[in-house]
Amino acid sequence: MRLVIVGGVAAGMTAASRARRQNPDAEIVVFERGDWISYGACGLPYVVGGEVEGLDRLVSRTPEQMRARGIGVRLCHEVTGVDARAATLTVLDRSSGRTVTEPYDRLLLATGVEAIRPDWAQTDLRGVHAVKEIPDVQALENSLKGARRACVVGGGYIGIELAEALRSRGLSVVLVEKAPEVAGRMLDRDYQRQVRAELERHGVDVRCSTGVVGLTGKAGHVTGVQTEGGLVRADVVIVAVGVRPRIGLARAAGVRLGKTGAVAVNLRQETTVQGVFSAGDNTESLHRVTRHRVHLPLALGANRMGRVAGVNMAGGDARFPGVVGTSIFKAFDLGAARTGLTQTEADTLGLQAVSVDVTSTDHAGYYADARPIHVRLTAERGSGRLLGAQLVGAVPSVKRVDVVATLLHRRGRVPDLFESDLAYAPPFSSVWDVLLVAADRLQREV
Amino acid sequence: MRLVIVGGVAAGMTAASRARRQNPDAEIVVFERGDWISYGACGLPYVVGGEVEGLDRLVSRTPEQMRARGIGVRLCHEVTGVDARAATLTVLDRSSGRTVTEPYDRLLLATGVEAIRPDWAQTDLRGVHAVKEIPDVQALENSLKGARRACVVGGGYIGIELAEALRSRGLSVVLVEKAPEVAGRMLDRDYQRQVRAELERHGVDVRCSTGVVGLTGKAGHVTGVQTEGGLVRADVVIVAVGVRPRIGLARAAGVRLGKTGAVAVNLRQETTVQGVFSAGDNTESLHRVTRHRVHLPLALGANRMGRVAGVNMAGGDARFPGVVGTSIFKAFDLGAARTGLTQTEADTLGLQAVSVDVTSTDHAGYYADARPIHVRLTAERGSGRLLGAQLVGAVPSVKRVDVVATLLHRRGRVPDLFESDLAYAPPFSSVWDVLLVAADRLQREV
Repeated sequence: MRLVIVGGVAAGMTAASRARRQNPDAEIVVFERGDWISYGACGLPYVVGGEVEGLDRLVSRTPEQMRARGIGVRLCHEVTGVDARAATLTVLDRSSGRTVTEPYDRLLLATGVEAIRPDWAQTDLRGVHAVKEIPDVQALENSLKGARRACVVGGGYIGIELAEALRSRGLSVVLVEKAPEVAGRMLDRDYQRQVRAELERHGVDVRCSTGVVGLTGKAGHVTGVQTEGGLVRADVVIVAVGVRPRIGLARAAGVRLGKTGAVAVNLRQETTVQGVFSAGDNTESLHRVTRHRVHLPLALGANRMGRVAGVNMAGGDARFPGVVGTSIFKAFDLGAARTGLTQTEADTLGLQAVSVDVTSTDHAGYYADARPIHVRLTAERGSGRLLGAQLVGAVPSVKRVDVVATLLHRRGRVPDLFESDLAYAPPFSSVWDVLLVAADRLQREV
Repeated sequence: MRLVIVGGVAAGMTAASRARRQNPDAEIVVFERGDWISYGACGLPYVVGGEVEGLDRLVSRTPEQMRARGIGVRLCHEVTGVDARAATLTVLDRSSGRTVTEPYDRLLLATGVEAIRPDWAQTDLRGVHAVKEIPDVQALENSLKGARRACVVGGGYIGIELAEALRSRGLSVVLVEKAPEVAGRMLDRDYQRQVRAELERHGVDVRCSTGVVGLTGKAGHVTGVQTEGGLVRADVVIVAVGVRPRIGLARAAGVRLGKTGAVAVNLRQETTVQGVFSAGDNTESLHRVTRHRVHLPLALGANRMGRVAGVNMAGGDARFPGVVGTSIFKAFDLGAARTGLTQTEADTLGLQAVSVDVTSTDHAGYYADARPIHVRLTAERGSGRLLGAQLVGAVPSVKRVDVVATLLHRRGRVPDLFESDLAYAPPFSSVWDVLLVAADRLQREV
């Protein structure tokens, strides 16, 4: 049996490892169009910022290690076509320029996402970068030599992380966001504002409700960003306006796409085409709170999907439990996390949602260095079912979002949270952890 | 209706507040034998250590604030007797020395625990202290003037916290523990050892398997602790060998005590005597994992019991959901937490328990300042039901014990943990949070 995997980063390499464990005899081949496999792409902004000492640190397994486990890794091999009836792929060896046809018994599409490049960013000007893959950082590092001014376009978590990274390297940073606030897809408005305030407190010039019109350049190098609010001069421009699933091969294979535009799969990561699986950032997943199919390209979900696909394509039987929309990011000294639905999202879905906001401290207020933590907890009116939580506060403290995420998986109700025996000692929490305070208030509202 | 509460710290004052909210008309009186009410006793070691700026900081509500809410607070009033048939109390006003009889309609015993003073600690020598209440710290501070050597007897979490506090004030500290390791009641052996190693790393001289025989003194002041392993010279001795419930009044009232020696109650905090409630550290609670009644004198449980008792004694109807045995403490730079049962405890109960141990990092290993975190996760063989978790690692990181605590409340199984969509970004976690890694391994073992 020949198992072929397209894409060698999170979902793809996880699938390869799992398939090998499931089936010691199968031939397993991974085609990766780039030079790197199995790395933590979420760490890229922190290589720029210096919190990670080098790109090598992000690699969890090398091609040699994978080959030693009997997994064929073909770097610089781009899969350019698929014939699902013949069960063959067209593969371009980018180093030699040769194209070959490769057969498969089972195919996994783990092609991930690509950074969206709006029209204005379709340019040959040097100094304009997306930060999505390892070579992007290598290219950015070149542009940063001697650079003094950066403009980050896009205030999602990647834009925020890169604004911090560049600021910490001493550049002046302007962050331009089309929407009225940063972090617009993750948090409700009040919480978005706190993130913006933190960016501004650290000297990032945040300009919201500001669209980009074009770029200016000189001698082949970018010199600024033309925005609706005027020119932002910049030696380096980061394009972080979002990502979209790479679905070219899925289309060519005749695989059904979901409403989100990503590949539709069942819980076994099977597409609508026999023998073709899909996993990772190019793939939809089940949202356990809404029961809708969503496209949430995040690392843990990608890894989980890869595991499931790897087991199943090698003859096992595994299912992906779905996600509850948990995510977390850091902006300087502030952490922000969410799980489930925001109030805004719940309203959009027509749910009868109610939220409470609670401010407390990350540990006992009387203990040294207590810092504020803000929680919005959201539940369904009537049923009391938990719908979501948003936390903004000191960096590690917002990780307690996990408690709510765990309850969402089990369709927990507000009293399930309130009654939980959460850990307390002064260096760790208030007696009533902020989540318990929020649950107590919310149970009176639902 | 006259509601009388004996004890004005955690459970007692919480009950008073709740009773007032429940019933605006009832007369509510709190008798507190000391001078302080409503303070965070868990913070006392940190006042000694300097992380809390003063004893005042521990007080959450003053007698004046309580009186403004129509709650009668009588400081320095010790309840010395109870006649449950007549529904009266005998109360000694310690400032005047007068004794009066006070009637009640409903009575709450919130008398807490007292520090155990073994025979060797029954002494008039100055410099020998338990640290249980605010005056204890005031007395200790006197003894610390000019002191250079301290001996802490007892390696539970209070002994550990005080060893750290005294060490951080520059004293040489010997910690003497009768059991083979420190933290014996909280953690399994391997995890106890890590706590001891952290104490030793910070210069605490830890002597386990060492009983205390007596004290030495000179001119009315302690000079040392005679142990089975020889004399430990000390200017200050801390007695931290445990606590026991204050049950004198409960006995006098004819209330049934449980097997643990603490007051037995139902889920409404009612004792076996009509109209008499009990709440807080003197009271048993339901352990939701074992379904046994346990005596776990910890702040959150005490506050919860106080809430429930306050509502019920004022005519409402509330129930205490029970605990799952969560606790957490800090030893210098190390945090330690547990919830549910340890492997040892599960074995003792005759459960078919299996544990896995996982070491990971508190956040992504490649990100700056990643520190180890060790997790032991325990489940029931066959059913896969989660039984408990122990975490030892960087201080804030062990707070993720809450995820397991929350699942234990709902009798969650290992896959419930494994499938949870926990938050990931490099500054917060590995892609697979250490709890997920542990659950993954454990689901193969159960």
